[in-house]
Amino acid sequence: MKKRIGITMGDPAGIGPEIALKVFNDPKLYRRCQPLLVGDRSVLDFYLNKHPEIDLKVHVIATPEAGRYQFGSIDLIDLSLVDMETFKVGAVSATGGHAAFEYVNKVIDLALAKEIDATVTNPLNKEAMNLAGHQYAGHTEIYARRTHTDQYTMLLADGDLRVVHVSTHVSLREACDRVKKDRVLEVIRIAHTACQNLGIKNPRIAVAGLNPHSGENGLFGREEIDEINPAVEMAQVAGIQAFGALPPDTVFSKARGGLFDIVVAMYHDQGHIPLKLLGFVYDRKKSAWAAIKGVNITLGLPIIRTSVDHGTAFDQAGQWTASADSLNNAIDYAIRLAENT
Amino acid sequence: MKKRIGITMGDPAGIGPEIALKVFNDPKLYRRCQPLLVGDRSVLDFYLNKHPEIDLKVHVIATPEAGRYQFGSIDLIDLSLVDMETFKVGAVSATGGHAAFEYVNKVIDLALAKEIDATVTNPLNKEAMNLAGHQYAGHTEIYARRTHTDQYTMLLADGDLRVVHVSTHVSLREACDRVKKDRVLEVIRIAHTACQNLGIKNPRIAVAGLNPHSGENGLFGREEIDEINPAVEMAQVAGIQAFGALPPDTVFSKARGGLFDIVVAMYHDQGHIPLKLLGFVYDRKKSAWAAIKGVNITLGLPIIRTSVDHGTAFDQAGQWTASADSLNNAIDYAIRLAENT
Repeated sequence: MKKRIGITMGDPAGIGPEIALKVFNDPKLYRRCQPLLVGDRSVLDFYLNKHPEIDLKVHVIATPEAGRYQFGSIDLIDLSLVDMETFKVGAVSATGGHAAFEYVNKVIDLALAKEIDATVTNPLNKEAMNLAGHQYAGHTEIYARRTHTDQYTMLLADGDLRVVHVSTHVSLREACDRVKKDRVLEVIRIAHTACQNLGIKNPRIAVAGLNPHSGENGLFGREEIDEINPAVEMAQVAGIQAFGALPPDTVFSKARGGLFDIVVAMYHDQGHIPLKLLGFVYDRKKSAWAAIKGVNITLGLPIIRTSVDHGTAFDQAGQWTASADSLNNAIDYAIRLAENT
Repeated sequence: MKKRIGITMGDPAGIGPEIALKVFNDPKLYRRCQPLLVGDRSVLDFYLNKHPEIDLKVHVIATPEAGRYQFGSIDLIDLSLVDMETFKVGAVSATGGHAAFEYVNKVIDLALAKEIDATVTNPLNKEAMNLAGHQYAGHTEIYARRTHTDQYTMLLADGDLRVVHVSTHVSLREACDRVKKDRVLEVIRIAHTACQNLGIKNPRIAVAGLNPHSGENGLFGREEIDEINPAVEMAQVAGIQAFGALPPDTVFSKARGGLFDIVVAMYHDQGHIPLKLLGFVYDRKKSAWAAIKGVNITLGLPIIRTSVDHGTAFDQAGQWTASADSLNNAIDYAIRLAENT
């Protein structure tokens, strides 16, 4: 049976509703899964009125069970939080922040109750959410608190280039301090399990070094010798196909070329720079971002959560120019995780 | 008048001779410049015999003045250092290392004597060169010593994505220590001059942060506040179009999209990861590296030097599969520098 995927609409003032409509307007979506949207009917109607070329009906449902899951109508759980008579597209507002927050809560609850198999999120705006009195740094923290999860890890993907990080939002100096045997081994294990949950039986895990050229045998930096290589060896002893420490500047080319299934990055930008470079491509002729295709996956939760890897793009909202690539990729990853977990 | 460009053949056992032949076998090369090769006739003949489809003559010259610079014959300064009866393609050897070293010396001397306008290098192998008794870390050190240069900087480029670094071959911890106002300002100035020497009148210089998200206003790391932003402001006061500190994970997408002419990277891998990701693309179907197109430029020398950004690739040598993209790009950069310096 096809997996049932709950998708949030994201902040109604951002590009979330638009890219959701674009995704639901593709018959192929229904071959892959049973998709439902959690959001506001008024917002969908606003866009459908502006774009009569989109021939979709809105089918409001109270529970996922009531969904028809057939191309032509969007199965929507309508939280009725936004009045489009007064609501302003493209701007930060407490209304938008509150609505986005409640859509997220709803998909989490549906997944916890096993009424859906996975959740996929569209972007929310932190400032708007905080304006509405919900003090969270972002989606991940909402998920963590509502599912009572302490330990979670982010997996970033662009196509089949995948990255998990040893550390993320800490200074680069502190990131160096955090490269410790135990933590590196832990992240190798997380990477291994994540790939298996994506259906890759015996994943090949590339472990990046910390220093340029992986330190050239201790010439500039010893973390590879003292921390990373031992962690790789421990992982190998445990039967994991881990390789490294590999020179950071070429490991991503190799992984992108299919030589590895996932890369363990030692710090935030080591992993983010290659993924954003591939995911965010600026179209010079149109003076616009042409392809935004990264996926953000939260590992360690009791439910499945994947997300687009871009923001609300308020400056672009309402113009019907946003790319739905990232959302499509996030849905694909959610389906794969639901099928293999 | 077209600029006269001296190109080394690189280690004769590597892919240098092959990609040189591919480049000289393109009539367009002669519309762009007056190219000459410094190498060994025996090596060229070896490849020309193996590939009769390449209809090029070898025109041995004693000095650049004697060159014909017309498509159909390669103007070669023949150092006669390699005997192809005994020489082995694809292997490290003192003969290959010595020959490569002498080709480099020759182009340097020709450029110092102003008999050529710029030099372009094909890859040499450090181990082979050291075996031959020449104790240098690479090309750059040979150039520095022979031209009596103390201060030099590497500029990496892939098309019009260009990067200069605040530090390169030091540990990541030391790289953090080296992010100091004065040094950042110095590298901004180097970037500015380099772009002007490429014909960009008022270059837009992106200065990357050190920490993730540029430290989020000091939340994780203060180098942006204490060192980088002040350097950017000083540069602006000096009339340079500098921007930053910009979040490291998106600055390369923006520069690649044409929003900046050059990026000042804070450490080796910050700049190398994006450039190698773009430059080294693995062709899954052919199981081979498909595009190797980076260029390495040494700034601060009294002569112009650009280089391919890949190695000798001994494992690929002799197979006629190597891409000449990087060499072509290096020649283009050499021409631009010669025309604008």
